[in-house]
Amino acid sequence: MIHGQTSTPGLSVAPQIMRASWVESRKGQANVSQMHYARQGVVTEEMAHVAKRENLPESLVMEEVARGRMIIPANINHTNLEPMAIGIASKCKVNANIGASPNASDAAEEVKKLKLAVKYGADTVMDLSTGGVNLDEVRTAIIGASPVPIGTVPVYQALESVHGSIEKLDEDDFLHIIEKHCQQGVDYQTIHAGLLIEHLPKVKGRITGIVSRGGGILAQWMLYHHRQNPLYTRFDDICEIFKRYDCTFSLGDSLRPGCQHDASDAAQLAELHTLGELTRRAWKHDVQVMVEGPGHVPLDQIEFNVKKQMEECSEAPFYVLGPLVTDIAPGYDHITSAIGAAMAGWHGTAMLCYVTPKEHLGLPNADDVREGLIAYKIAAHAADIARHRPGARDRDDELSRARYNFDWNKQFELSLDPERAKEYHDETLPADIYKQAEFCSMCGPKHCPMQTKITDEDLEGLEKVLEANTGAAELTPVKLDKAD
Amino acid sequence: MIHGQTSTPGLSVAPQIMRASWVESRKGQANVSQMHYARQGVVTEEMAHVAKRENLPESLVMEEVARGRMIIPANINHTNLEPMAIGIASKCKVNANIGASPNASDAAEEVKKLKLAVKYGADTVMDLSTGGVNLDEVRTAIIGASPVPIGTVPVYQALESVHGSIEKLDEDDFLHIIEKHCQQGVDYQTIHAGLLIEHLPKVKGRITGIVSRGGGILAQWMLYHHRQNPLYTRFDDICEIFKRYDCTFSLGDSLRPGCQHDASDAAQLAELHTLGELTRRAWKHDVQVMVEGPGHVPLDQIEFNVKKQMEECSEAPFYVLGPLVTDIAPGYDHITSAIGAAMAGWHGTAMLCYVTPKEHLGLPNADDVREGLIAYKIAAHAADIARHRPGARDRDDELSRARYNFDWNKQFELSLDPERAKEYHDETLPADIYKQAEFCSMCGPKHCPMQTKITDEDLEGLEKVLEANTGAAELTPVKLDKAD
Repeated sequence: MIHGQTSTPGLSVAPQIMRASWVESRKGQANVSQMHYARQGVVTEEMAHVAKRENLPESLVMEEVARGRMIIPANINHTNLEPMAIGIASKCKVNANIGASPNASDAAEEVKKLKLAVKYGADTVMDLSTGGVNLDEVRTAIIGASPVPIGTVPVYQALESVHGSIEKLDEDDFLHIIEKHCQQGVDYQTIHAGLLIEHLPKVKGRITGIVSRGGGILAQWMLYHHRQNPLYTRFDDICEIFKRYDCTFSLGDSLRPGCQHDASDAAQLAELHTLGELTRRAWKHDVQVMVEGPGHVPLDQIEFNVKKQMEECSEAPFYVLGPLVTDIAPGYDHITSAIGAAMAGWHGTAMLCYVTPKEHLGLPNADDVREGLIAYKIAAHAADIARHRPGARDRDDELSRARYNFDWNKQFELSLDPERAKEYHDETLPADIYKQAEFCSMCGPKHCPMQTKITDEDLEGLEKVLEANTGAAELTPVKLDKAD
Repeated sequence: MIHGQTSTPGLSVAPQIMRASWVESRKGQANVSQMHYARQGVVTEEMAHVAKRENLPESLVMEEVARGRMIIPANINHTNLEPMAIGIASKCKVNANIGASPNASDAAEEVKKLKLAVKYGADTVMDLSTGGVNLDEVRTAIIGASPVPIGTVPVYQALESVHGSIEKLDEDDFLHIIEKHCQQGVDYQTIHAGLLIEHLPKVKGRITGIVSRGGGILAQWMLYHHRQNPLYTRFDDICEIFKRYDCTFSLGDSLRPGCQHDASDAAQLAELHTLGELTRRAWKHDVQVMVEGPGHVPLDQIEFNVKKQMEECSEAPFYVLGPLVTDIAPGYDHITSAIGAAMAGWHGTAMLCYVTPKEHLGLPNADDVREGLIAYKIAAHAADIARHRPGARDRDDELSRARYNFDWNKQFELSLDPERAKEYHDETLPADIYKQAEFCSMCGPKHCPMQTKITDEDLEGLEKVLEANTGAAELTPVKLDKAD
């Protein structure tokens, strides 16, 4: 399987068998995080595995993890995980969101979506289920079936645990759910700890206010209780929990802009500053961190947003949602956001959270997952090429050679979505014989420009004629004799 | 009709009646080009109309046209045209290609595609028919039905006129067809005059050689006859024809790269240099010019390509095809290329030629035209926002306000593709009552973050509490009393 590229080529042991033995000896240790080992100069099996997948030296992986510039989200209770890395030294990654909404779904359905996401190349998957199902059952089923890291947003379940009552929700409810997710094997959790009560007045003047689901819950909690964000006040306690499982922080950006107008405003930047402080606080515990980012951002502000995050958050990996570069295309937001995502990836963003065509309109179905993922695999790959990551363009070159040679089957095979490529080709020329044809229906049999094969012999003849005619002024017609 | 925005708001006279009287008095004049009038200080009706559409001063339009930095492609024989402008001072434009291939279609079918393209917002349309139909009949039908400028590539018909025989094709055949297109009312023609015989050896080492259909024909002609490109040697003659009809040059880039590997190479840049010379040569005739560009270009080379074109071609409007930022996603090249197109537009490209999902695989159908156009309207609009063109973000802000207010019908109406947005929304919540609902199926009735409406009263209460607690260190928990 080429297109998903989730498995490491040449991997001889199934991930689920492989990792169980790795984590066995670590159980019961006070801090089992990859960062903790890296800072002691230990290259874990996970780091070695990542080095192989990314074609990077093991020492570099260890140094980047120790430095906090690379994370390997790998809960010790997620033993069937095939470890992967997120960080500027490794290839740009893509996350897919799945999850049931109260309009129903079930565990089997969500596992199906997980497999689909992995098939189309998701590097991590977030389970954003908010209800309509037994949340623990769905989450456990997803983790049990997933070779990729699983992320969650514990605030949803915390609220559900008190039957949706902001009034009843207390600090310990949050921590209780966070620990439960850790026990179940969640590899990273979105923790909305950067939204401070002092930030809320800065939302005035926005068109779309707060558009983060978890952030909205925290804002309501703070407004109701007139107390500081409990995820902020109890941040060290959360670090203590995370280090025992090696759960990674995905620091949530509750104040990400929800439209072009609100981008890069004071509210967003105030929270980003706090996210930077929290990053360094987690690092004091040797706990791994990535930082979430926008959202909706005009093209000309994307580089600024990426650079600002690096500066504020000491280069902890950046994980953005899109960003969408216009607000006027509901139904096509996988495209409006893939444009922003490619730009963000090029400027150094480590992971791109996909957006599906259903964004802003409804719950995505299987087709939407496919469309969203391929759009984001494109964005991440374009970023890898633009950053000149070693070998990033090899597959492009190979496919281009197949294209020039009219090797249709090889073109399909090297595509991000071979089934789609073949289906589109076969729509007009289904017969097998056309898989060897030197044309497709776009230009027809006589007009394909790829048929213009200029041979070395052609050029040698031409060069001789040209040599005999040197000195002709550039704008003077060069009337050459016909040589043949 | 908001989404296509082809018609000028408040336009009281139908374009076909309007323009016939404008051009009446010009007939028989030696040079009827907009550039010619502009250089004499005349504001034509077309310039005045464009000024209104673009919300620009008439004097600025005249100056930009005189300078060659803006074009108004408007053949005097295309009287039902509604004039529009292409140039850095005006909004970024989008072109859609239609046309029959030898695998059949007919005039009625192509007129249908034209109307579809205009519906989804194409600013100009190119008829790239290569055969299978009576080319003159199709072209005449398209022009007769089109309110937008029509472009063509005369080389295809020139070759067809000698039954596909490169050997028989002579210089006059090219000029004969070019003049015929002018007479029929074609507003701009792709003229592959920049490909010189000296450039051909530079193609060595490319993976995909020559990928321009017209350029491939010229290359074969030069290789066979061992003579210079006739469109280059007869360039002044073509200018003489163009000025009598005000047909605009779209200088073709025969050596545009066909894959990431070939981007920005010596062959491409050598031709670009010649395109610059030809631009200035056409301007000596007061003939309007835009310059075509790539193609397939990695993200990090796009700004260079745009700046280089401006430098080489004295800022004549740039018109690019994509560019695609990766080669590995056949079936999704409307997306790989919309990413590049948005970037190119942001850096100052004046018009973006769309690419459909069928690119490299087959002839696009009606659905593909829609998908391709919307992807490109997104790219062009994102570029307008990023360039801070006056008013560019107004529609985004309006849609975002409707979104925050759960005004679903207004959201649909303001969308680039209202039918698609509504269809996706209705897929899960079809009943009319949900058009007033404060949620969609994405998050369900209880979890939509847009429901987090923080009122000014909420914030006033909060601010009072915060004032009473100033001085708390940033990392110290701020334990505030519950005020209510």
